[in-house]
Amino acid sequence: LEDSSTRAAVRDGEDWVLLAVADLDEHLAAPASQAVATAVLADPAAARVPVAEAKLLRPLLRPGKIVCCGLNYRDHIAETGRETPEYPTLFGKFADTLTDPDADIEVAGSGEVDWEGELAVVIGSEVWQADERAAEQAIAGYTIANDVSMRDWQRRTLQWLQGKVWERTTPLGPVVVTADEIDPRGGLEISVSIGEETMQHSNTRELLFDGPALVAYTSQFTRLRPGDLILTGTPGGVGLGREPRRFLADGELLVTRIEGIGELRNRFRIAPVSGAEAGA
Amino acid sequence: LEDSSTRAAVRDGEDWVLLAVADLDEHLAAPASQAVATAVLADPAAARVPVAEAKLLRPLLRPGKIVCCGLNYRDHIAETGRETPEYPTLFGKFADTLTDPDADIEVAGSGEVDWEGELAVVIGSEVWQADERAAEQAIAGYTIANDVSMRDWQRRTLQWLQGKVWERTTPLGPVVVTADEIDPRGGLEISVSIGEETMQHSNTRELLFDGPALVAYTSQFTRLRPGDLILTGTPGGVGLGREPRRFLADGELLVTRIEGIGELRNRFRIAPVSGAEAGA
Repeated sequence: LEDSSTRAAVRDGEDWVLLAVADLDEHLAAPASQAVATAVLADPAAARVPVAEAKLLRPLLRPGKIVCCGLNYRDHIAETGRETPEYPTLFGKFADTLTDPDADIEVAGSGEVDWEGELAVVIGSEVWQADERAAEQAIAGYTIANDVSMRDWQRRTLQWLQGKVWERTTPLGPVVVTADEIDPRGGLEISVSIGEETMQHSNTRELLFDGPALVAYTSQFTRLRPGDLILTGTPGGVGLGREPRRFLADGELLVTRIEGIGELRNRFRIAPVSGAEAGA
Repeated sequence: LEDSSTRAAVRDGEDWVLLAVADLDEHLAAPASQAVATAVLADPAAARVPVAEAKLLRPLLRPGKIVCCGLNYRDHIAETGRETPEYPTLFGKFADTLTDPDADIEVAGSGEVDWEGELAVVIGSEVWQADERAAEQAIAGYTIANDVSMRDWQRRTLQWLQGKVWERTTPLGPVVVTADEIDPRGGLEISVSIGEETMQHSNTRELLFDGPALVAYTSQFTRLRPGDLILTGTPGGVGLGREPRRFLADGELLVTRIEGIGELRNRFRIAPVSGAEAGA
């Protein structure tokens, strides 16, 4: 908004209808969030902002947990020649790792910045030791993420974290589409392009562990809460897997699309390492 | 406190002197937190609670980031016969993973629950792309953690996260000792016992990457903020490395000590998997 504050909102045609709360984390944490959203849509006095005039931030500003899944697209597993995994490979990110759907991605200190377009699951209600049916009911909706990865740092040790949690490098958004309006299991096209060149192209029906399966699995050991986020993994076509290898170059535009949700558009920038603070 | 609220406090001999804020995260996030703590100690009107009457929770209730380091004690690396690593192996935890210094640790669904006593670093001021000297200045103090790990889940995939982030299984505390009062580099005894039997015993001077080194390294890719937490890794003597292997049994008392900080005392309990919700 003009005063630099944020507001959660529900899309209604060409308008965003503003909710009373500052962000989606707060909206989802409140009781009966779905009824509140339905009520505001029906309220003729509700404040509206035309879609063309709204500045969209990442839909979740401070998720308590971000759980990410590796190696999870059947077509990608097949092309790598690996066996189908019995369990999902999970790692974490921090809230500070997220950035906005149209933000520049600035990286200082990695020469191997790679892309991973992913479907992201937004938790809507608390879920603990759930089966897949209960897990599915706890999903508020779906959004898009790009798990931008610094491969040189990711491969320094066996654990990937240090290549995965660079500040403000995982764009998220542009919107959360509620689970009743979208069917990732039925199949949504997913793609990543650099400029006009398509790098990744697959379909969410190729997910080995889909949203409900990942929610159910994760809920066996940690309670998922409203606003928590699960990134479901990426299909083939990442830069590390290409022949020859190909990483992001300064100034390139990374576009991540999922059918029915929209697209992320992020310009990649190489930033200088902070010399003074680094003691250089 | 009696009304179930929490308060941050500074220890003064046999008293806790209460600060005006609810928890240490809030205290550290405020400007001039050290001056505020000094002032309250000198204030004869400040509220006090005798140490024997205080119920201590984990000192950080909602850290934004918890970064953990694997394989980091020289004696442990030597005993495993591995080469000295060039980079720290890092993985993450969630705020929900933490529990109180005297809390029961309840686990449902793992048969290989192991211990990892660790020195934990508490960040006191924002730090970004720092050298070790600047990193050292950003450390508010040190506390104790036990990175309790579900080995069967940890080894299901190459990434450790799913064995490391079980809800309320990492005890933290009992206090944060400020960096001016303690010298982990000079050497603090660290030990883990089950009942009377010592399982781990080493000294923090054996750390390959010490607190300032881990803060400096992590700050190259993500801004550390007041209240963020870094777990520095564990020495030899974990159950997985023993011959024969030895894991926690229902009812056992896990005691984690570091010289100059105090101890964690946590009873281990096997909990039933929630049958209804799990759809069993």
